[in-house]
Amino acid sequence: MEQSGPETAQRPTVSSVAAHAGVSRQTVSNALNNPERLQPETLKRVLTAIEETGYVRSAAARQMRTARSGVIAYRLDPVRDGIGGAVLDTFLHALTAEAERRDYRVVLYTADSDEAELRQFSSLTQARAADAFVLVGTHRNDLRYRWLSEHGIPFSVFGRPWPEEGTTAAEPAHAWIDVDGAAGTAQAARHLLDLGHRNIAFVGWPAGSETGDERRRGWDEAMAAAGVGAAERRPLDSEQQDGILEGADAAARLLAGGATAFVCASDSLAVGAFSAVRAAGARAAVVGFDDSPTAAALGLSSIRQPLDDAAAWALASVLDQLDGRAPRERDARLLLPRLVVRESSQPPASATR
Amino acid sequence: MEQSGPETAQRPTVSSVAAHAGVSRQTVSNALNNPERLQPETLKRVLTAIEETGYVRSAAARQMRTARSGVIAYRLDPVRDGIGGAVLDTFLHALTAEAERRDYRVVLYTADSDEAELRQFSSLTQARAADAFVLVGTHRNDLRYRWLSEHGIPFSVFGRPWPEEGTTAAEPAHAWIDVDGAAGTAQAARHLLDLGHRNIAFVGWPAGSETGDERRRGWDEAMAAAGVGAAERRPLDSEQQDGILEGADAAARLLAGGATAFVCASDSLAVGAFSAVRAAGARAAVVGFDDSPTAAALGLSSIRQPLDDAAAWALASVLDQLDGRAPRERDARLLLPRLVVRESSQPPASATR
Repeated sequence: MEQSGPETAQRPTVSSVAAHAGVSRQTVSNALNNPERLQPETLKRVLTAIEETGYVRSAAARQMRTARSGVIAYRLDPVRDGIGGAVLDTFLHALTAEAERRDYRVVLYTADSDEAELRQFSSLTQARAADAFVLVGTHRNDLRYRWLSEHGIPFSVFGRPWPEEGTTAAEPAHAWIDVDGAAGTAQAARHLLDLGHRNIAFVGWPAGSETGDERRRGWDEAMAAAGVGAAERRPLDSEQQDGILEGADAAARLLAGGATAFVCASDSLAVGAFSAVRAAGARAAVVGFDDSPTAAALGLSSIRQPLDDAAAWALASVLDQLDGRAPRERDARLLLPRLVVRESSQPPASATR
Repeated sequence: MEQSGPETAQRPTVSSVAAHAGVSRQTVSNALNNPERLQPETLKRVLTAIEETGYVRSAAARQMRTARSGVIAYRLDPVRDGIGGAVLDTFLHALTAEAERRDYRVVLYTADSDEAELRQFSSLTQARAADAFVLVGTHRNDLRYRWLSEHGIPFSVFGRPWPEEGTTAAEPAHAWIDVDGAAGTAQAARHLLDLGHRNIAFVGWPAGSETGDERRRGWDEAMAAAGVGAAERRPLDSEQQDGILEGADAAARLLAGGATAFVCASDSLAVGAFSAVRAAGARAAVVGFDDSPTAAALGLSSIRQPLDDAAAWALASVLDQLDGRAPRERDARLLLPRLVVRESSQPPASATR
């Protein structure tokens, strides 16, 4: 739909479009609602007039006609971590821009529990303030997917589903997309191996989170493939909560144990590891995860998630559902991240290459 | 308005509310639209029935009746800096939560220039997808205020207006709120003076930005008030672009010149200054600005902006305008920030107190 420029003084109406095109108001209405009833030439004339007059259909009229709001809802969470948080900000910006391109809007809501979020689902859809939901962040025993599915409300998820407790990991019934974290950390480990490192440590989260376990697995498999045995890998693995100070503590300990490079599960951990390396005056390489603006500012190599692609897919999925289009594939997808190399990717002091 | 719980199978209607309350549909309609026409007891009975049935008025119905969308629009910008960016994330979350409390929603839009933003204003209001705008970020010769004012569209601004080029700083005609940056850096400087520092440097932005000049002025005035003369202050002042590396470079230079403490215009600069202090093995104090999650993680003292208050005020201002209520005051306000003291606030090595 063409938008009226800011210079437009009077809001164009169906009548002014009809006058401009030299057709009846009913013909304009048909062009908007039942284009198949018009001759192609007439339709084209009306659409040109709509464009030239800058006519914009009112959201209320669209909504009464289509029973749709043209709005996708997204939960905005409180800011937790200035480094990792930027990933979701980037995703939200990409989602908003992509929605605009497809003549949709993004409305925000807050919720501090699954139960509060179900109330928001109910309120937003009953009030027709939103047609569909894009969810991010998944957790065990997530109540939301089943509720939305049972109520026939379109949604897609950025984040793979966790198997429900007491069940096996069945094929999930809903649309989701995620980034292949293992592929990212494997790429980081291979990059450091190529630079000549062998004692490449993993600075990760405590075992038991799917995202964290995936990232650990990528490092582990790449190291094993390069011939670093299990006994050699074990002391190079570390678990801690996410955070700059936690990353610094872990790196200081691992440096003392002989590590010369670090694959980190997050940029927060990597910023900490990087500061520990510099504090120790050591020549060690650090790779983070998420390619945050902070990583870029510090010259930290990092794994970049394809957030524009993820947002475009998440939106396309709900629009497909809204329009009753069948998903093209399984409607679930893993995207490949890519390594951004910066100054923190140094060869080892002993490098002979 | 009470929200229906997720367990509600059928959406309650005006008829079901009327049946529940034992009144006519017209009485329910009056309770919703013209409550002054009902006896207080009747009104209370209907509102109780609305609550008990979980009736939610449809957004489309509300919109057709009031010519309002119940939606406030907010421009979402691309992520620039993982540290400073958290301020606006926090503001947006507070705005969204406050809007929910007042039965409004926040819709997002993007724009990469004033001109693009005017097109969004036009499109969003003509389509009745938003009633009003909360703007953040102000700049010289800002086209937006005049356009919105001329079109009679309610808006408020987080950020004080810049005087237009070629004019004197006239009293701005629109509603704005800002944080008193000078009061913040003055507080930081007095805190460091109290700890026993005298060579307190300012790590700031290039002169010429209102926000940056304000923050410099607070430091400067507090130092002057403590008897640090102009000739002594001059070499302690520094100008650089915002950034971690820029902060580190400035602090290293100022440390070499004898500075023992740093008041920084942003947490990005402060994170850099803090890392330079540690790299030099120096005992120097650092205070940042914005109390970002990164500052908290690193143990950096920082000035905290009252973002919840700013968001609540920005929203209250546009709702007042929408409802035709006169602003209570000048409809412009400066909020006081407050210093959050953490480990980076060390007394000087030579402290005798």
